[in-house]
Amino acid sequence: MALAKRRLTKPPRARLDVDERRAQLLALGLELFSQRAYDAISIDEIALAAGISKGLLYHYFPTKRDFYAAAIREASRQLLDCTRPDAGAPPMERVHPVIDAYLAYVERRGPAYSALMRGGIGSDPAVAAIVQETRDAFLDRLMQNVPAPAAGPELRVTLRGWIGFVEAASLDWVERHEMKREALRDLCAEVLVQAISVATRRAAAR
Amino acid sequence: MALAKRRLTKPPRARLDVDERRAQLLALGLELFSQRAYDAISIDEIALAAGISKGLLYHYFPTKRDFYAAAIREASRQLLDCTRPDAGAPPMERVHPVIDAYLAYVERRGPAYSALMRGGIGSDPAVAAIVQETRDAFLDRLMQNVPAPAAGPELRVTLRGWIGFVEAASLDWVERHEMKREALRDLCAEVLVQAISVATRRAAAR
Repeated sequence: MALAKRRLTKPPRARLDVDERRAQLLALGLELFSQRAYDAISIDEIALAAGISKGLLYHYFPTKRDFYAAAIREASRQLLDCTRPDAGAPPMERVHPVIDAYLAYVERRGPAYSALMRGGIGSDPAVAAIVQETRDAFLDRLMQNVPAPAAGPELRVTLRGWIGFVEAASLDWVERHEMKREALRDLCAEVLVQAISVATRRAAAR
Repeated sequence: MALAKRRLTKPPRARLDVDERRAQLLALGLELFSQRAYDAISIDEIALAAGISKGLLYHYFPTKRDFYAAAIREASRQLLDCTRPDAGAPPMERVHPVIDAYLAYVERRGPAYSALMRGGIGSDPAVAAIVQETRDAFLDRLMQNVPAPAAGPELRVTLRGWIGFVEAASLDWVERHEMKREALRDLCAEVLVQAISVATRRAAAR
């Protein structure tokens, strides 16, 4: 609603710069896909909400799947951006704000995030690849930021596993909302500390 | 290859009981989808390997997606079946054989499991629903088998998270194979114990 109103204050077919238009369309896509399922949103509706013709929309995104994939790529970019760790903070103080920002993003983009992670709607190889790249980026960051003397396969598999832990826990949380965000954040952080200890012990005993 | 040979010893169009034929087709599907990607396998190839006409195959499974979904359902049944906990064992001794059986299954069905969990190929709402039901079944079992005084949202979200941990860790492991199965099993089991402690502490402090 707010979105529709905002748009009415502009002439519907204002000439925009290509990048600007693309960014505007992606923001709109994220908003729509965050509220409702992929299948429930038509190309007509997207064009109408954007105040452009279907033809122009197709010019930017040849198919609805392309549009969806681009919106997911934008979401991934935003998610990685808002969870960038503070390199100045001591390692174990970096993790709380990162998890908090992650959960806040999940909360804001609930339905789109659930649908995406569950592979339920509009999921295809392009989208799966974006999800996988996002996980890889989180893993790289973790590997660089976590103070763990034991590198090696135990640490790697544990950090991968922990990313899976946060994904699964946050999906459950965003559906049921039985805890405060801060409580889930602290729980995830403590599990990370414990999991790293397990990996370190097991690597040392190898 | 072994499969093709085995099939040659039977008359190709032997009349089978409907259930028997269906089971045979699902076993074949699992074998094929475990070896190669969904998109790389044609209906013609499936019919040829099964020694039946395309028409008869379509009689059992109207589309390739239906066939894939049925094979995934069969895989879920097998996975839940082979990981059934031993109700006679003490709770914390139940978990090692369960994780071991899970990882052995992942190892055997590697490509199909990866593809499925990554939502990469042939993923659609029906398949996503089966994956979600399988996770729910694992959560129910965990809730019943884990000795945790602290029920409540902390435990639930932690067990959900741990299932995500095992999924993500096993996907990484099956691709890279840098650890023995027993080592990953023990790591997952230790992380479970630690995660339950975290949940218990946090629930008590609530």
